Amino acid sequence: MTGNSLTDTSSGLYFKDHSQEWLVRAQKQISYEVRLRDGIFRPECTDLLEQGAGTSDRARRFIVVDRNVELMHGDRIRSYFEFHGFDYSIMVVEANETLKNLDTATRIVSELDTFGVARRKEPLIVIGGGVLMDIVGLAASLYRRGAPFVRVPTTLIGLVDAGVGVKTGVNFNGHKNRLGTYTPADLTLLDRQFLGTLDRRHIGNGLAEILKIALIKDRALFGSLEEYGPTLLDEKFQGVSAAGDRAARSVLHSAIHGMLDELQPNLWEATLERCVDYGHTFSPTVEMRALPELLHGEAVCVDMALTTVIAWRRGLLTEAERDRIFAVMSLLELPSWHPILDPEVLVNALQDTVRHRDGLQRLPLPVGIGDVTFVNDVTPGELQAAVAVQQELGDARLPKASGEQAVRDR
Amino acid sequence: MTGNSLTDTSSGLYFKDHSQEWLVRAQKQISYEVRLRDGIFRPECTDLLEQGAGTSDRARRFIVVDRNVELMHGDRIRSYFEFHGFDYSIMVVEANETLKNLDTATRIVSELDTFGVARRKEPLIVIGGGVLMDIVGLAASLYRRGAPFVRVPTTLIGLVDAGVGVKTGVNFNGHKNRLGTYTPADLTLLDRQFLGTLDRRHIGNGLAEILKIALIKDRALFGSLEEYGPTLLDEKFQGVSAAGDRAARSVLHSAIHGMLDELQPNLWEATLERCVDYGHTFSPTVEMRALPELLHGEAVCVDMALTTVIAWRRGLLTEAERDRIFAVMSLLELPSWHPILDPEVLVNALQDTVRHRDGLQRLPLPVGIGDVTFVNDVTPGELQAAVAVQQELGDARLPKASGEQAVRDR
Ligand SMILES: NC(=O)c1ccc[n+]([C@@H]2O[C@H](COP(=O)([O-])OP(=O)(O)OC[C@H]3O[C@@H](n4cnc5c(N)ncnc54)[C@H](O)[C@@H]3O)[C@@H](O)[C@H]2O)c1
Ligand SMILES: NC(=O)c1ccc[n+]([C@@H]2O[C@H](COP(=O)([O-])OP(=O)(O)OC[C@H]3O[C@@H](n4cnc5c(N)ncnc54)[C@H](O)[C@@H]3O)[C@@H](O)[C@H]2O)c1
Repeated sequence: MTGNSLTDTSSGLYFKDHSQEWLVRAQKQISYEVRLRDGIFRPECTDLLEQGAGTSDRARRFIVVDRNVELMHGDRIRSYFEFHGFDYSIMVVEANETLKNLDTATRIVSELDTFGVARRKEPLIVIGGGVLMDIVGLAASLYRRGAPFVRVPTTLIGLVDAGVGVKTGVNFNGHKNRLGTYTPADLTLLDRQFLGTLDRRHIGNGLAEILKIALIKDRALFGSLEEYGPTLLDEKFQGVSAAGDRAARSVLHSAIHGMLDELQPNLWEATLERCVDYGHTFSPTVEMRALPELLHGEAVCVDMALTTVIAWRRGLLTEAERDRIFAVMSLLELPSWHPILDPEVLVNALQDTVRHRDGLQRLPLPVGIGDVTFVNDVTPGELQAAVAVQQELGDARLPKASGEQAVRDR
Repeated sequence: MTGNSLTDTSSGLYFKDHSQEWLVRAQKQISYEVRLRDGIFRPECTDLLEQGAGTSDRARRFIVVDRNVELMHGDRIRSYFEFHGFDYSIMVVEANETLKNLDTATRIVSELDTFGVARRKEPLIVIGGGVLMDIVGLAASLYRRGAPFVRVPTTLIGLVDAGVGVKTGVNFNGHKNRLGTYTPADLTLLDRQFLGTLDRRHIGNGLAEILKIALIKDRALFGSLEEYGPTLLDEKFQGVSAAGDRAARSVLHSAIHGMLDELQPNLWEATLERCVDYGHTFSPTVEMRALPELLHGEAVCVDMALTTVIAWRRGLLTEAERDRIFAVMSLLELPSWHPILDPEVLVNALQDTVRHRDGLQRLPLPVGIGDVTFVNDVTPGELQAAVAVQQELGDARLPKASGEQAVRDR
């Protein structure tokens, strides 16, 4: 018996009403690491070895790899685990937004279960983009009520967003990430080398999430995107030129740090007013309805373009700022409008988001460049007026196909 | 920026190695209530009204009810929500161990999603046994990464065990509870009136989990079971006689309190040596292999009988104590042996449990009556010898069918 008073707020078992009622309180400690590294599969890089058991026994690991990553990086991944004498199994999984579902998650759990891992000392390893990390994170969080896992993001969205937080999930019932958990990977290794094989469109896709961080909290980062956006697209963060290398390092670092700084105080989203939800009010519906045409970051960008116009119409930013934002979107080769944005879709999208935000809009709007506010009173009429302006200012052009190098006639 | 030193262990965002590594720390506060109540669906009982929003708006609730419970208690459940003017939807679900799977969970989430609830102020309500509570708990924990829920257990296992902890889950790949989460219901209302319609076999089934608590930590509770076991079976905890009423109240209270007292300090099973795992080492495999023949508590009882013999062979309890334990099992009309218990099955079961306990057996064994110890060195030979004794002492007789009143030829 730990206590008997309800006024105490610390952990314990409390009871009242002649012991007919119990109150259970406890605190769960969470801690996880995110490391920027160059070349994590070089034999001398030990980060992956340090995680989980394996110093005395032979390390057993179940590794899930994105199919495209396996095609381009599979050899050096296998060599690494061979070199270090792991007893490992690699499961290659095709991953894209359409396959981000419970079926894919259960296929993974099923193979994991057959491989058989000790509950806590043999972490799963996932190597892939945001889609695969979200799915494997969910699988790991459910397996025996939570198995440890390690993430190696291989896309830009993965490096700056999906790989640094604690959210896992899959789409369900036509809704984006409708099922999921808050479960951190024990360790995430961010290695920009993977971006070298990513197509240009997916670099832009990740730049959209970086632009989000810039708009809500980091004016200097916005400046870097204005200055180096095209270089980052051309060099794919590989540091081909000295200036490009500096820009890549600094943009990555600012984006990751900015994101973590926002996430850490609100890991479980106790507060539903989240500035990192900027661009994520209308986009979940837009992305799902336009599937597979719009990528995640592209849908986010279309949402940011709309809310930029809303903010400008409310006097939260100047016309010059509004135009600078649209210009950067264009510079990053991101769409700032899409034909699916009719007012009815937007009203529906907002309704679902209101349920998701527990009854209020809590809509983040930019204030100038680098600051944010929240509003709860956007009307259908305001949406209609804003989307008309957006259509005028915006650019809907997308690369022809997702696998293809982007060639944009601008 | 919250801090910059790794030596600090409190919440925050820390970094090191020239800002190439971040460490995120945070604490999640958990608190939930468990209340013993008589007649929670009497119109004047307000517990269900106090949870979630609904004072100003009309309260919207999605309610999942076990099919058998709906048959026997559906009218008064509906009347209650009608009387209080809820805008509610009742989903009736058939629940048993064979249907405890991801499919049932997704069917529930799908209907919930169609009904549409605000994310945090409109808790799901589940009314049913351990199976349905575990499934709905999982569904709730996944929906939008966690929707609040309220549990109303309607079986004895539900009241003393499944309804008081934080574990949710479904069976997967032929394994018991292989997928799940640790997610507390915000509130659990324990109302013994439901037990009045439960068949005798399921009362015995719940008494097995009470016996577990008695054996590992509560000698007085063991005495109550010896003295009042048959009365509790006859009266189904309804307090038909004054003595039966006292016994029912006291046994329920001790069992619940004992369970909560064990769970609270170890809610997320950071410690894998859990005395409440007593009876749960071999039983997950035994239960799944014997499905649907053995009920959960019955499989647990067969496991406790085996481990009682192991403990006796190791000198941890006397022959008299061993025989008293077997006698109580028989008094509670529980099986203490089952033909499926051949040494090979037991060795397999132990292997899977060793993985579940992260590489060690951590096998709880009774020490006398009311105490426990953990061992890691049980061998196949020891299992074989113990099961032979168990077969001699034990009783495998089960009621003919699960729906049927138990008639046992003893
Ligand atoms: N959990 C979170 O906090 C969070 C945050 C942001 C986004 N997300 C999710 O992330 C997803 C988007 O992530 P994404 O853009 O990485 O999508 P993705 O995982 O589908 O990857 C995009 C494409 O790139 C391929 N690919 C991956 N790495 C490659 C490489 N190194 N070289 C060549 N091809 C490679 C993939 O096979 C895929 O075809 C969305 O589902 C979104 O919801 C989650
Ligand atoms: N989460 C936990 O911590 C925890 C703890 C212990 C057990 N469990 C789980 O609980 C399950 C066993 O629970 P259970 O024994 O309640 O099984 P159950 O839910 O299958 O219920 C048993 C049967 O009783 C019927 N029933 C329920 N309430 C009734 C009532 N009031 N009147 C008449 N019939 C009624 C059900 O329809 C079912 O047929 C197992 O799956 C076990 O793993 C979970």
